[in-house]
Amino acid sequence: VNIELIAVGDELLLGTTLDRNSNWIASRLTENGLRLRWHETVGDNESDIRHQLRRAWNRAEVVLLTGGLGPTHDDITRPVLTRFFEDDLLFRDDLMEPIRERFRARGLDIPPGTEVMAEFPVRAHPIPNLHGSAPGIHYHEDQKQLFAMPGVPVEMRGMMESYVLPSLMEYRQDHYGFRTIKTTGRGESHLAALIGDPLLLKPVELAFLPSIDYGVTLRISATADSKQQVNAVLDQAEEFLKQRIGGFIYSFSGKLLETVILDVMRQRGLKLAVAESCTGGIISSRIISIPGSSDVFERGFITYSDGSKTDLLGVDPAIIATQGAVSGDVAQAMADGARQRSGADIAMAVTGIAGPSGGTSEKPVGLVYIGLSDREHSETHRFQFTGDRDTNRRRAAQAALNLLWMRLQETRNG
Amino acid sequence: VNIELIAVGDELLLGTTLDRNSNWIASRLTENGLRLRWHETVGDNESDIRHQLRRAWNRAEVVLLTGGLGPTHDDITRPVLTRFFEDDLLFRDDLMEPIRERFRARGLDIPPGTEVMAEFPVRAHPIPNLHGSAPGIHYHEDQKQLFAMPGVPVEMRGMMESYVLPSLMEYRQDHYGFRTIKTTGRGESHLAALIGDPLLLKPVELAFLPSIDYGVTLRISATADSKQQVNAVLDQAEEFLKQRIGGFIYSFSGKLLETVILDVMRQRGLKLAVAESCTGGIISSRIISIPGSSDVFERGFITYSDGSKTDLLGVDPAIIATQGAVSGDVAQAMADGARQRSGADIAMAVTGIAGPSGGTSEKPVGLVYIGLSDREHSETHRFQFTGDRDTNRRRAAQAALNLLWMRLQETRNG
Repeated sequence: VNIELIAVGDELLLGTTLDRNSNWIASRLTENGLRLRWHETVGDNESDIRHQLRRAWNRAEVVLLTGGLGPTHDDITRPVLTRFFEDDLLFRDDLMEPIRERFRARGLDIPPGTEVMAEFPVRAHPIPNLHGSAPGIHYHEDQKQLFAMPGVPVEMRGMMESYVLPSLMEYRQDHYGFRTIKTTGRGESHLAALIGDPLLLKPVELAFLPSIDYGVTLRISATADSKQQVNAVLDQAEEFLKQRIGGFIYSFSGKLLETVILDVMRQRGLKLAVAESCTGGIISSRIISIPGSSDVFERGFITYSDGSKTDLLGVDPAIIATQGAVSGDVAQAMADGARQRSGADIAMAVTGIAGPSGGTSEKPVGLVYIGLSDREHSETHRFQFTGDRDTNRRRAAQAALNLLWMRLQETRNG
Repeated sequence: VNIELIAVGDELLLGTTLDRNSNWIASRLTENGLRLRWHETVGDNESDIRHQLRRAWNRAEVVLLTGGLGPTHDDITRPVLTRFFEDDLLFRDDLMEPIRERFRARGLDIPPGTEVMAEFPVRAHPIPNLHGSAPGIHYHEDQKQLFAMPGVPVEMRGMMESYVLPSLMEYRQDHYGFRTIKTTGRGESHLAALIGDPLLLKPVELAFLPSIDYGVTLRISATADSKQQVNAVLDQAEEFLKQRIGGFIYSFSGKLLETVILDVMRQRGLKLAVAESCTGGIISSRIISIPGSSDVFERGFITYSDGSKTDLLGVDPAIIATQGAVSGDVAQAMADGARQRSGADIAMAVTGIAGPSGGTSEKPVGLVYIGLSDREHSETHRFQFTGDRDTNRRRAAQAALNLLWMRLQETRNG
């Protein structure tokens, strides 16, 4: 079944409102075995809404529409829909009564103009609004369906859950499924080369979703005759990917890298300390953003000045003087110092030149050293990032977490 | 000018990715006096992309497209665009060279298949990619323009700022202007009540843009016959707002709170230290994200465990035992300790219960204490936030920066 979603609202096209509604609707459809095929945003003007309605009603079997059902002058969806379906608006006292009741319950007078929300198209069915005043509008004609809902998120969600999704269950494709696989440590092109021809995965489809913060996410999806069959082919594809790029996969369930790290460290009873210069708290903040991180995260040092590296981590000022604050030796001394002074089992340290200034020809902007220290072992890595200040800092944080995760993999049986 | 935006990507229609790109593009167009008229999302399949391209190229003068420019098999925008324009792809060594250079700079081999990104449509112009490999594609034909950009946000944003927006300036409506006014310390309803009837600002329009991180942003905008007239009415509106809510405005130029703080502290030669427990690095990271922050930011302590509060900040264990780690006394001792041990002029400290667990009836989730310490003065503030873990942490960071900014205002003549 072809499903189309039309979001109505000037605020969406002006960019003053981020359209979380459409994303939520899309994910709820997906979770129910349905797929959104087209999505458009149009402004609060009759001509654009009508054009899009005409197109959607021609090509889709199900049309969802959000926005413009309220009582103010800029809410034009109700009359526009009525004209589009060559229908008539009729005041319905049965729809006005719950609206009156809402105002009564709050001890408020009914503002003039509210009645317009109970003027309803004759041939349509009202969608009850559990969280607000304006009812939704459901047309079921020519073996097609249209559902118009308010743009207020809680009202729209209530209608989707209680009315729209149940009405769509007849179209449900039980045989579609997907999984999200999280990787880190290699870029998109590298992973693609390691995986080889994606046709080898058929009937499973493979998609790459890169991001700065969280490495490359892969999505495998499949359609088959039954849920079991979908799961079977997805299991096979997962096995295949494990063989090809298993060393770079940290999650088959969509978990964040910091969550996976915390789970492993908690299980092994390990404590973590972090020393950050250029990343300045990004790593600590990502870890502490996870509930329960206090079991593992011991402390963090944001040693931005040279003096603080010496005071807090015991970095020898002579190393800073000879090698520079951005150097492998300093990264190593920071990691060792953070571990020893905190009593943690593992420590990570980052020092680098985030930019935009501060670079030289020997030490250009984007140069970052990451040190890792545990009881048996120390290591330092050099990275050359090529982005702006923000990107370099976020990539450095991701690289550090990746190194920690790799180290935890190495010491799996330690 | 009619501008249309096509976002390409199955992940958008599946709902696995929230489309922040389209929102960002819309707001940047608006800020530049341009308006997005239509926006659609289509999946990674040639037929749907072509249909939408046909429609957009017919009705709009400017078509923006995001997504599907990468090197993997599911990136089909480049060949689909080429076929749509009845053009041919040609390998361009001048486009391959910067891609090779990117890999060389990182010391990586060039994975097979990367060359595809340098196969470029003959009649199109490449849009340089400052943050990634794949160049964007610019067609300028039939007095219309199409700009295709990658879906990776940082790459798309770089192309918009450096190439697309400058190319669109010829369509700019010079008689539109807006200003962004940043406030902190009061909520949206409070500010609205203080401002009064927004019609008093006519012909200037006032919009409220609340956000978790950065307080309430106000946008005033106006359309008039000339740039001077726009500026004159916006100046008037600014004056009006200064009178009504001046105490909560920290910037009339859209600057971030952390930038304003750094500017003031740098000017006065003051150094800052930060001690964070529940915020875990958010405050330090926000400050260090600003270039040149090293002049002011001395060091940060992420004292998540009780032991680290004592070791690093000298908090008396007896206070932690009697008052609890989340208490005004501990916040104060953390701030005092951070200042004294770092030698900074001002220190801030945050301790709280971010949630979801760890709350009690006396100390519920969302309780946060913030301490501030300078040479003359110490203060502690108690906050009760009501959001989830992420929201509580971000609001606490904002509240701390706000207190620091207020303190700097108080000591203006000190």
